[in-house]
Amino acid sequence: MDTINFTRGVPANESFPLDEVAAAAIDALKARGPAMLQYGPSAGFQPLREWIAQWQGVSADRVMTGNGSLQIVEFLCLALLKPGDVVFTENPTYDRTITMLRRHNIEVVGIPLESDGPNIEALEAAAAKHKPKAFYIIPDFQNPSGTTCSGEKRRKVAEIAHKHDFLLVEDAPYRPLRYRGTEEPSLYSIAPERTLFMCSFTKLIAPGVRTGFIIGRPDLIHKLAKVAEDTYISPGYLAQGITYEWCQRGLLQPQIERLKKLYLPRLDACLAALDKYMPGAVDARPDGGFFISLTLPEGVLTSTVRAEAAKRGLNLSDGLAFFPNGGGERFLRLPFCALTPAEIEEGVRRLAESVDASRGR
Amino acid sequence: MDTINFTRGVPANESFPLDEVAAAAIDALKARGPAMLQYGPSAGFQPLREWIAQWQGVSADRVMTGNGSLQIVEFLCLALLKPGDVVFTENPTYDRTITMLRRHNIEVVGIPLESDGPNIEALEAAAAKHKPKAFYIIPDFQNPSGTTCSGEKRRKVAEIAHKHDFLLVEDAPYRPLRYRGTEEPSLYSIAPERTLFMCSFTKLIAPGVRTGFIIGRPDLIHKLAKVAEDTYISPGYLAQGITYEWCQRGLLQPQIERLKKLYLPRLDACLAALDKYMPGAVDARPDGGFFISLTLPEGVLTSTVRAEAAKRGLNLSDGLAFFPNGGGERFLRLPFCALTPAEIEEGVRRLAESVDASRGR
Repeated sequence: MDTINFTRGVPANESFPLDEVAAAAIDALKARGPAMLQYGPSAGFQPLREWIAQWQGVSADRVMTGNGSLQIVEFLCLALLKPGDVVFTENPTYDRTITMLRRHNIEVVGIPLESDGPNIEALEAAAAKHKPKAFYIIPDFQNPSGTTCSGEKRRKVAEIAHKHDFLLVEDAPYRPLRYRGTEEPSLYSIAPERTLFMCSFTKLIAPGVRTGFIIGRPDLIHKLAKVAEDTYISPGYLAQGITYEWCQRGLLQPQIERLKKLYLPRLDACLAALDKYMPGAVDARPDGGFFISLTLPEGVLTSTVRAEAAKRGLNLSDGLAFFPNGGGERFLRLPFCALTPAEIEEGVRRLAESVDASRGR
Repeated sequence: MDTINFTRGVPANESFPLDEVAAAAIDALKARGPAMLQYGPSAGFQPLREWIAQWQGVSADRVMTGNGSLQIVEFLCLALLKPGDVVFTENPTYDRTITMLRRHNIEVVGIPLESDGPNIEALEAAAAKHKPKAFYIIPDFQNPSGTTCSGEKRRKVAEIAHKHDFLLVEDAPYRPLRYRGTEEPSLYSIAPERTLFMCSFTKLIAPGVRTGFIIGRPDLIHKLAKVAEDTYISPGYLAQGITYEWCQRGLLQPQIERLKKLYLPRLDACLAALDKYMPGAVDARPDGGFFISLTLPEGVLTSTVRAEAAKRGLNLSDGLAFFPNGGGERFLRLPFCALTPAEIEEGVRRLAESVDASRGR
């Protein structure tokens, strides 16, 4: 078997609804071509804003679309934060968000993450100490850990945010991809006036549409849209118009069902292989999303395992970048969605071999 | 006649090659759908980079594409400049660039612009005084003035840049839209190792594709691509894949010819109306691009004329934002491309009336 990549959290190529996107492109350009091709409001292509608003059960003035949600984090930095501000993240968290916050000279403080969400005592203590402006949190199928925050902890996070007056930035790209079990309430549903909820079509249609969105208080959305206008005048209306046409044909729900059918066997293959080759290694068993994470045995470093894995045709990612304040030397993230069950089984087998070869080194 | 907008520099809706874009979308997704929909290198969709490289006569490692060229200015700020650096612009210049530079705490110094390009003595003196890191210049059919820099001044600008060791950022979105006369050499062709040349498909296909590009030294392109990756991972590959398919079908040159046929009569209508209703008002008579500019008579302010014009169903833009260091109280930009010749004639007639009504006020 060829090289196996447990590296980046990308969707499976075979999941892309190519023919549907092509058909949507034709009809979208026929129905509203000039609007899709001209400049327009920076908050996004209006029909798409309205469709998302209806989908999410909010008013359209609470929705801004952008070219992927990472850049929306940049707009948050520019519109709502200033250099020297403190922002909390989970520890570990999405590495690109850490890079983005630091680019804007935001101080990033990581809150220890447990299998059911952030450690609440640590959050409370850190809030009192650091007076953060915001908590960037990925409550569903977290990147990189795969954990989901419990309903109880969500309510406590919202309480602490209220008590210490900080914003919640809820990054939820994996939320619609729950393969089993029961959905927890979004932070936005618990605290709509202090939560900015972000989601994206990257994991639902494809990264190439580069269309993410944020939902929040109209006054905050207005500030974000001003910064967006100063950055790129308008987001990618051609892609947003195609995305809108695809959505309004009712294709999102069937696509989500197809994704669940495609990804659940991959999740199960990954959990089964880990149980078989590395029993006890998994801390949290996710019910959705893209990631399972491990803590390697005492004395075994991810960097050593990566080198051993490379010899065995297995590419792994460094774990360090996910930890804003150090640590993560034994952390390993396994993105399972873009591999077949057979590749996953073989990949985990090679991983276990690589871990064994790394012991005592 | 309805309200006439001499406000924003947008292309004409009727110029968009709607059917061609739709056909390109279908075939592009058929031919390379997964690559267009997946994540990929931040420097842009590789086939498009290569096509632009061939078009512009450079190697592909000298080309980066992005979501419109304004945002590429942001990447320049992040990758090559630091807060407190001085950047020169023409005075007046594109207002959004001023806003972008200032957002990054760059000090913007305007170099007086004449009908044949920047005042060379002023540039030389300012270079000696300010030690700028870069000169952002729009040599062809400048925004907002409509002027084109002479060949002689281009060579002098390059000499001064060399002598004082600063970069030239050549923003050239209107360069392919020369309706008559002879093209001057690009700054990039004169000084390829210190010029970053920017152009865009916004004015050639449509703003909705949000695809601009920058050409320069591979080491600089590499730094820009890193910043782009940290900002949005990949640019809009769906739109870039469609743009590539459209380009490689040989549709760009015929489209440019169509644009010239559409816009030349509008330029001529604007010049003729100004000669008729406001003789002597035009400083430079452009041979291409989107803009003609005026300096209003002594004692007549643009702000007053705007208010008078609004009463007459004519919307004008404020001139002040184009001037980085003050001034521009009597400046007026007329974007003529998105209006018919009849609207232009009537718009200029209303303008002349508004100017008359503003005299002595």
